[in-house]
Amino acid sequence: MFPVSLTTIRDLKEDQVRALLTLAKSIKKNPDDYTSVLKGKTVLQFFVENSTRTRMSFEAATRKLGGASIAFASATSSLSKGETLLDTIQTIQQYGVNAIVMRHSSGGSPDFVANVTGLPVVNAGDGSHEHPTQALLDSLTLAEHWGIDFTKEEPFSGKTVMILGDTIYSRVTRSNIHCLTKLGAKVILCGPKTLTIKNTELFPKIEVIDFPESVIGSVDAVMTLRIQLERQLSGGIPSKEEYRHFWGLHQERVSQMKKGAVILHPGPMNRGVEIDAEVADSDRSLMLKQVENGVWARMAVLATLVGGVKP
Amino acid sequence: MFPVSLTTIRDLKEDQVRALLTLAKSIKKNPDDYTSVLKGKTVLQFFVENSTRTRMSFEAATRKLGGASIAFASATSSLSKGETLLDTIQTIQQYGVNAIVMRHSSGGSPDFVANVTGLPVVNAGDGSHEHPTQALLDSLTLAEHWGIDFTKEEPFSGKTVMILGDTIYSRVTRSNIHCLTKLGAKVILCGPKTLTIKNTELFPKIEVIDFPESVIGSVDAVMTLRIQLERQLSGGIPSKEEYRHFWGLHQERVSQMKKGAVILHPGPMNRGVEIDAEVADSDRSLMLKQVENGVWARMAVLATLVGGVKP
Amino acid sequence: MFPVSLTTIRDLKEDQVRALLTLAKSIKKNPDDYTSVLKGKTVLQFFVENSTRTRMSFEAATRKLGGASIAFASATSSLSKGETLLDTIQTIQQYGVNAIVMRHSSGGSPDFVANVTGLPVVNAGDGSHEHPTQALLDSLTLAEHWGIDFTKEEPFSGKTVMILGDTIYSRVTRSNIHCLTKLGAKVILCGPKTLTIKNTELFPKIEVIDFPESVIGSVDAVMTLRIQLERQLSGGIPSKEEYRHFWGLHQERVSQMKKGAVILHPGPMNRGVEIDAEVADSDRSLMLKQVENGVWARMAVLATLVGGVKP
Repeated sequence: MFPVSLTTIRDLKEDQVRALLTLAKSIKKNPDDYTSVLKGKTVLQFFVENSTRTRMSFEAATRKLGGASIAFASATSSLSKGETLLDTIQTIQQYGVNAIVMRHSSGGSPDFVANVTGLPVVNAGDGSHEHPTQALLDSLTLAEHWGIDFTKEEPFSGKTVMILGDTIYSRVTRSNIHCLTKLGAKVILCGPKTLTIKNTELFPKIEVIDFPESVIGSVDAVMTLRIQLERQLSGGIPSKEEYRHFWGLHQERVSQMKKGAVILHPGPMNRGVEIDAEVADSDRSLMLKQVENGVWARMAVLATLVGGVKP
Repeated sequence: MFPVSLTTIRDLKEDQVRALLTLAKSIKKNPDDYTSVLKGKTVLQFFVENSTRTRMSFEAATRKLGGASIAFASATSSLSKGETLLDTIQTIQQYGVNAIVMRHSSGGSPDFVANVTGLPVVNAGDGSHEHPTQALLDSLTLAEHWGIDFTKEEPFSGKTVMILGDTIYSRVTRSNIHCLTKLGAKVILCGPKTLTIKNTELFPKIEVIDFPESVIGSVDAVMTLRIQLERQLSGGIPSKEEYRHFWGLHQERVSQMKKGAVILHPGPMNRGVEIDAEVADSDRSLMLKQVENGVWARMAVLATLVGGVKP
Repeated sequence: MFPVSLTTIRDLKEDQVRALLTLAKSIKKNPDDYTSVLKGKTVLQFFVENSTRTRMSFEAATRKLGGASIAFASATSSLSKGETLLDTIQTIQQYGVNAIVMRHSSGGSPDFVANVTGLPVVNAGDGSHEHPTQALLDSLTLAEHWGIDFTKEEPFSGKTVMILGDTIYSRVTRSNIHCLTKLGAKVILCGPKTLTIKNTELFPKIEVIDFPESVIGSVDAVMTLRIQLERQLSGGIPSKEEYRHFWGLHQERVSQMKKGAVILHPGPMNRGVEIDAEVADSDRSLMLKQVENGVWARMAVLATLVGGVKP
């Protein structure tokens, strides 16, 4: 049975991941069939960490399913007066909401909110833990590019994806490792040692390398991550220039990729650091498709958890 | 006749208070009968003082009645460029709104706005003056707990409510004194002398005491207020620890309350100061019911003032 | 053919200006005929420079046409993390919007956004360049006062409008010069030399004077502008008192205006600087009508560009 909430990809069964992605494809193909799925339902957009882009994507998904959104503005709320998360969420729950989409700086907080409210919760990013809808939209985008559907097990078998950059603090990485390996892909992590996931034994099917050169010519996709420029100050990366030199996607490095291999980026980009402008705007880049597929993937999640659609 | 606006409880007749509360009970019982009451109507949520929780409650009330909300964001508005309140509100009025819900730091400003716009205005808190819908939701919550309806005069006759804390700056207190005494309850104010209402002769039916001990065992409800921690700096309270010792609702003090006596708090709480966590989460606490009833009480007010429903 | 976007008044043909204004009049007369024009359409309110009043006006216009708005909050967005305007707008476009209303501090940015997105863009103010809907609402307001319609060429022939104040930084001025002269009016600019448009040869039909005295008795309308008080610090104006003395609309100066001559102000006002309170609140002032007409003018623009209504 499908879980009440979507807080991690890790805890989803392999066939549940494929079912959500299959539903996302169906919705993308026939969006008009789903315009009343959330009729009369209200989704709380509970972004305690700011994120205009993810919030807008979930609001668009809610709207396209016929539902209403209410937004919580953390900066002006009682949370900023020291109210506990528990009191805040139990208060808001009384206003009558049918589901909660939430982003929070603490890993695990969506499970806490799911427990205390009993409502479906969609994790839109919790600390450095997971960001499951980002992983779904990334796999949806790759599958589309590769012409693969999700009807049989391990549909990404034979494909290799390199995740490049600051993986240690990255919820995008953790969700993508689980999603891609459940779908049968091989995952390689690459980035500065200081910023690479340490407990790699928790993710049995991955490989870790220091520099992209040895594999750049053979991978099917590179998923590069946004460099948080504040890491530079804290010693995690030496300088923007050196980061670009060793791990950045500049034209010289990208020219070594095999024909048809593609590049993903969760956005927003630091053009000229982790990715050069000419690469970002080239045919290899699937970034705008990622953003578009984000809406379809989120519609699939909300339709399943809130709208009673069987994925 | 019912007034055009709801700016105070003081100026409502006793039977008008009961009529609003009776309507709130009806709406709570059969919300589906009221889903088109504000169809085609737009309510301006004019919160010049920030309040996420009260604004969300009024927005939920508007939505459940089938109306639309537009929100005014004071921080980025012309008010912050020095525009007068008069110019701001007359400007917004031109966009086509049917009613104004407002919070403002100046007592009396809702009456001013009601006069200049001619529109129904709901006071959602004006300085230290009144917060009428908070009083309505509190009485609705108490009546529900006591199994009392509002069909006959002085329905709260024989009941005693203690309001505990910083009453001098409290619009919640002023509205509640008027509401509870109109309904026939006895009201006792208790708190630090520095923070207790001075002109008690303006509220003839109340009693003022310094410490809760003498009455804690006999009251039917304690309404504790949020301590504004900044009062500590200005000398109004000595320290959080001493405040808790003398006026806080900790388990030892609460254990002296009689069986069935309940606790209300308008939120957000400072757990460990005016109320301990174990008390806040105990069966005596009606806080979450207060929040829920806030939506029903506000629906009753909007349905009456804007939707033409006879209360 | 009508352009896809409305980024300037300058580039509109004279009959296109009249067509938009004629449509605005029709909508104002029979708003109920237009309530489904934007049904199913979503308008992005992309205000990178804050403006509560203009944003609310466009949102009201969208709502009255049956469309939905989504708002972009620049302060919390990736733009504030250094993302480029191009990446931001291409990202948002993927969420599915049918048109973009935008305000930005850079002149020309709406044309850039129109080019890269292919969507209809309405310029709601770009730097010191243009603010076309402000000019449309001003002409709509003047025409209404003068009892003029837009059926024949140069309907404002014989009328003189003085624009008074800081014209050099004023997008309101530039759009109004183009709009008023296309409609046949004579335009006179007046204000401190330091703050007056320099390249007046770009606007062939205008006259520039230093002080209002020589013409105040003969103009049909005075459009006074908001003084940006920060100009005082940078030396653009000497002091608020001297500005009021030489260019402010105080009662003594206004009493020299001819009978029936009117005053416009785009708001928000600095009462007591560019306009005195008694003047702002007098019968000559059309300010509240300007605000109201702003909604009708913007409805005409959105109906034309997004709703497929022939103006």
